[in-house]
Amino acid sequence: MITKEKIADAYQLIQDEICSGLELADGSGKFQEELWQRDGGGGGRTRIIQCGSIIEKGGVNFSAVYGKLPENIKKAFGVDDDDFFATGVSIVIHPNHPWIPIIHMNIRYFEMNCEVGKDLRWFGGGIDLTPHYVIEEDARFFHTELKNTCDRFQAEFYTKFKKWADDYFFIKHRQETRGIGGIFYDRLNPASSGLEWEGIFEFSKAIGRTFLPVYTELIQRNRNRSFTEEQKLWQFQRRSRYVEFNLVYDAGTKFGLETNGRIESILMSMPPQANWVYDFSAPSGSEEEKTIKLLKKGINWIS
Amino acid sequence: MITKEKIADAYQLIQDEICSGLELADGSGKFQEELWQRDGGGGGRTRIIQCGSIIEKGGVNFSAVYGKLPENIKKAFGVDDDDFFATGVSIVIHPNHPWIPIIHMNIRYFEMNCEVGKDLRWFGGGIDLTPHYVIEEDARFFHTELKNTCDRFQAEFYTKFKKWADDYFFIKHRQETRGIGGIFYDRLNPASSGLEWEGIFEFSKAIGRTFLPVYTELIQRNRNRSFTEEQKLWQFQRRSRYVEFNLVYDAGTKFGLETNGRIESILMSMPPQANWVYDFSAPSGSEEEKTIKLLKKGINWIS
Repeated sequence: MITKEKIADAYQLIQDEICSGLELADGSGKFQEELWQRDGGGGGRTRIIQCGSIIEKGGVNFSAVYGKLPENIKKAFGVDDDDFFATGVSIVIHPNHPWIPIIHMNIRYFEMNCEVGKDLRWFGGGIDLTPHYVIEEDARFFHTELKNTCDRFQAEFYTKFKKWADDYFFIKHRQETRGIGGIFYDRLNPASSGLEWEGIFEFSKAIGRTFLPVYTELIQRNRNRSFTEEQKLWQFQRRSRYVEFNLVYDAGTKFGLETNGRIESILMSMPPQANWVYDFSAPSGSEEEKTIKLLKKGINWIS
Repeated sequence: MITKEKIADAYQLIQDEICSGLELADGSGKFQEELWQRDGGGGGRTRIIQCGSIIEKGGVNFSAVYGKLPENIKKAFGVDDDDFFATGVSIVIHPNHPWIPIIHMNIRYFEMNCEVGKDLRWFGGGIDLTPHYVIEEDARFFHTELKNTCDRFQAEFYTKFKKWADDYFFIKHRQETRGIGGIFYDRLNPASSGLEWEGIFEFSKAIGRTFLPVYTELIQRNRNRSFTEEQKLWQFQRRSRYVEFNLVYDAGTKFGLETNGRIESILMSMPPQANWVYDFSAPSGSEEEKTIKLLKKGINWIS
């Protein structure tokens, strides 16, 4: 029997593993932990790393909260009950290096306190990558690793969840994707996934455990690359798009703001520095232009 | 008879006056103009000034657009018709100097194309100030000037519109106001204002013409003050709150994004650089702490 306590325990363990691994990969940065409690129920462990050798600002957060759902979120979820429980691990890493990508990972579990058998519970999550400069070989590696994890559970997962990420991580007002996507899934239950709850839980943990080796590899591949001041400015501009996505569209951020979550934990996804340059246009033939052209839906990175 | 053409013409004139005046006040920065047309109807004149002596990035935009309203905005406005016309001048100035405030001004007119007599038309607007450091004497000057303009039209305008600004320019998730407020008004018509349409139009223009002398004075008072690197970092942090307000709450930004407006014109309000520092806490007794304590609703700046 998969209980919410068991899920929360597993997620905390994954948070621990990832923090240790990222400190090793970074080489000098150390996580600072804040324990917090939420008015209304539950709390979390926010872990922030700043000013590392590679990681300029990153958060690896665990939370397990419960209480009453706000009216607008009940509507959005299409539920009548209002006692909820939600637990998850959320990660955003902003590296100081323009050739190392921003990465986001989230695994989460949500349930409503309602009659047995109604099964108002689901898993959600995903991993996606936002390179400041798209390196096609790294993009292929990233998507291949995600596909390998997906394929261990269900043949159609990667294709389905890759498309979902393309659609979700889309900055409508810019008509560009946030990055090269990855996978995104939500409301996974036996009916929607073809797996039993045990299998879905295993999949959720497997996604959590795909994060560290993949991101470590991307750090190692690019950390010794040199870069210019112009490339740093481009990085700051790409980060401003990240800000726009998270504040305008991201469901997790909205959920956090509307359920009165801990604001510094929710907004740990904000970059340390972002720049907006009016009406910037990448020079023809430049690496920047090449990246912009690759920020669209439906690219098959693997073939 | 106040026609939409007459209003748009007056607004363009005000845009011209303000651009000339700001170039003079700045001393070296020059506006660049982009003329644009909107798919679906209308267009505008976006004028951006960057890298001036004082103004790091600023926009003074005029637009006059028309077309069909999206469904969700019809709902928000409580209207059935969907042919709209909207014109306005919008200004956001980000100075390079931490002792000179960010300022925002907007005057606008909106109407629906419906039967005569139904009077689905209104004026809206306001001016508000976001100092990186609150200087109480400057705040008093700013609010006094706004009150003087309001008092020429209607006794209760300042009190009513000052409270409206406090409520509107509020960053709920931070539980702080965006700055020291100012005035904000919307849906002004004869019934809600006690003025005839001519009077409301005159008031709208008077607000537009209050902007330049007030902001010029605030520039002159503070431009020779020295500042430190720490104060610049604080400025970048205050700008990040400005980003949060505009992307999460600002109705004008949302309207622009949802009506498929020109994205670079809508987001000209974004600062050139913003920084997010995790869980920053201003030292006890510092100027930064003093400013944070003044970012709340209901302060009477004039008495």
